[in-house]
Amino acid sequence: MAVGEASFPSMPSIGGVRLGTAAAGIKKPGRRDLVVIEIPESASVAATFTRNAFCAAPVHVAKAHLSQQSARYLLINTGNANAGTGAAGLRDAERCCAALGELAGVEPETVLPFSTGVIGEPLPVERIVAGLEPALAALAEDQWAAAAEGILTTDTRTKGATRQVELSGGTVTLNGISKGSGMICPNMATMLGFVACDAAVDAETLTEWLQEAVKVSFNAITVDSDTSTNDACTLIATGRGPAVQTAEDEQRFRTALTTLLTELAQAIIRDAEGATKFVTIDVEQATSVEEAREVAFTVAHSPLVKTALYASDANWGRILAAVGRAPVEALDVDKIGIDLGDVRLVENGGRADSYTEEAGSRVMAQEEIVIRIQLGRGDAVATVWTSDLSHDYVSINADYRS
Amino acid sequence: MAVGEASFPSMPSIGGVRLGTAAAGIKKPGRRDLVVIEIPESASVAATFTRNAFCAAPVHVAKAHLSQQSARYLLINTGNANAGTGAAGLRDAERCCAALGELAGVEPETVLPFSTGVIGEPLPVERIVAGLEPALAALAEDQWAAAAEGILTTDTRTKGATRQVELSGGTVTLNGISKGSGMICPNMATMLGFVACDAAVDAETLTEWLQEAVKVSFNAITVDSDTSTNDACTLIATGRGPAVQTAEDEQRFRTALTTLLTELAQAIIRDAEGATKFVTIDVEQATSVEEAREVAFTVAHSPLVKTALYASDANWGRILAAVGRAPVEALDVDKIGIDLGDVRLVENGGRADSYTEEAGSRVMAQEEIVIRIQLGRGDAVATVWTSDLSHDYVSINADYRS
Repeated sequence: MAVGEASFPSMPSIGGVRLGTAAAGIKKPGRRDLVVIEIPESASVAATFTRNAFCAAPVHVAKAHLSQQSARYLLINTGNANAGTGAAGLRDAERCCAALGELAGVEPETVLPFSTGVIGEPLPVERIVAGLEPALAALAEDQWAAAAEGILTTDTRTKGATRQVELSGGTVTLNGISKGSGMICPNMATMLGFVACDAAVDAETLTEWLQEAVKVSFNAITVDSDTSTNDACTLIATGRGPAVQTAEDEQRFRTALTTLLTELAQAIIRDAEGATKFVTIDVEQATSVEEAREVAFTVAHSPLVKTALYASDANWGRILAAVGRAPVEALDVDKIGIDLGDVRLVENGGRADSYTEEAGSRVMAQEEIVIRIQLGRGDAVATVWTSDLSHDYVSINADYRS
Repeated sequence: MAVGEASFPSMPSIGGVRLGTAAAGIKKPGRRDLVVIEIPESASVAATFTRNAFCAAPVHVAKAHLSQQSARYLLINTGNANAGTGAAGLRDAERCCAALGELAGVEPETVLPFSTGVIGEPLPVERIVAGLEPALAALAEDQWAAAAEGILTTDTRTKGATRQVELSGGTVTLNGISKGSGMICPNMATMLGFVACDAAVDAETLTEWLQEAVKVSFNAITVDSDTSTNDACTLIATGRGPAVQTAEDEQRFRTALTTLLTELAQAIIRDAEGATKFVTIDVEQATSVEEAREVAFTVAHSPLVKTALYASDANWGRILAAVGRAPVEALDVDKIGIDLGDVRLVENGGRADSYTEEAGSRVMAQEEIVIRIQLGRGDAVATVWTSDLSHDYVSINADYRS
């Protein structure tokens, strides 16, 4: 299931960024499951990774390599997450990087590995290595759609976004692809995002901007509260295009980056496992952004709120109860207000006098729903996007093996 | 659905504690939905309440009354939670207490009100008041089973437990009943526990012991992570029996109290919405009990772990990933071990060499499952009990209105 329609955008090329895919037969034969992304020498590369303590072998290796040299290649495989594989998993990831380095004539440390798929099974190194040559042979600047397909696991659709932004020095183009729809038995699918642009930005600055943008995009979505072991988002700036020079350049570039990552993040929620609803949770009047996020995630993770959304049931008591149990000190419930779309649901901590079952049901029947929560204690805000909890979610995650 | 068989125990009387029920037609006609519990004058009464900031009107009133006078009557209604009802809800709760006080010839402040059922709807005060006379007329010491039935909402079975413990001064008897099975659309069911004994313990000490016992019993269970607005547990000590005098008396009494509350708490999990599994999560080798509880609850709340349990799928990667995302500082994953029943699942942060899919599946096929997690960083332990996430859970919480 997925929410709404989605078509992959036509993406302009980013000079020097070439993408190649291959069907390495990692899990299923004949399926595009190996992706190589070539990065020009001049480029700056930034990346953020999962905060799960059990992060996968490729995450360890990618972090280490990125700290040593500027990356020249991204190597992505689906069908196997190389997670929970211990020391052997680290060796396997290194072997894949070495093999690509040898074929491409670069240092192994300039290769960043990414894996997604089943957890706890040995990485099929031979198949991946065998797939490197065809993938390299296929390298081209116009292969974004193929790469978007090559990184999918249980996703039902490819996810891509593109932006062009005018800077003082000229036009900068940003392209991004992502994958992820939750986790699926027996696999542990993961969120991956790969973004490239032709702007000139040093790696340190790029990393700072990426982290800020990820905080309000990829780190503001939840399907089932289960942080995966392989999540990663990579941002490439080739430097072949104009530099980000003025304050206005920075503001424009970072806005474009943030909206692009947000579009990719929302695409994951629209394709969430079993999703029938796309839900935006805005928390306002908090004392801090962290507090606003805590409340938003508490509501977004509530199985009772999620099942009510699935049922298109304006069960405001469940939203109210979730807000009430959020980890917020000295919450004054009499000041809380909740809006469901354009309908006032809760006022001064109780059901709004103007509220009617009919009005609530009208909003809940929609495929895209906005829940706005005012805490009445500050002016900090945060937004989180989530999906509903449907029979299909249980089926996807429980019935797969049965 | 419910896990295993359960029969209500035969309960001895607690001298002076009389229970009466009535069918007040609060939600459905002809159903036992009103319970009055009479407490002898000499008794000590202790109570713990929900920590949800949106606690219901009866919780506010019961807390206030308990702080003013020693309780003589507990007044419990099902079918309406009197939550999210604002100032009117407080007035309604007070009116019910006043009516009972007048009929029983006691101060209104000696009545503690408890409500459970649909949230956000006005309490039907007239029906409750009309039900008080028949309930009072039915008061008797042998009505524990009737009272256990009278406090149910969506529970599929009554829940009761009894203990007798030998103290230096003689035998003490403890009886307890509870209700709760999660939350159900459009209602918000709640956890309620009522326990009485004939021991002689002052209210302050009783409160301290109750809080300690609740921490490892009612506060150690989770169905769906949604803390309700009405949870309450009340403990009565009539003082007609022997006093708790020696250190050994205290140890014996508190052990009996804790095991009784734990039995009542576990009964709620066995009757959890859609439950097909009863799951015990033991976390060991933590630096603190709080840390152990955090990890246990993170695993217990994981939708992916819960759906894997429902599918009897030994998906150890999901348990591992949940542990990995638990809010624990500097977790060394290489030290972590996980046992599934008598099967070693994870060792040194990876799949145990001895592990086989067959062995894991054998344990997961059982109706009662124990997951033991060693963190390898201390000697604190904690245990949490939970249920699985089944299609029935979604149906109960989503399809109710459809």
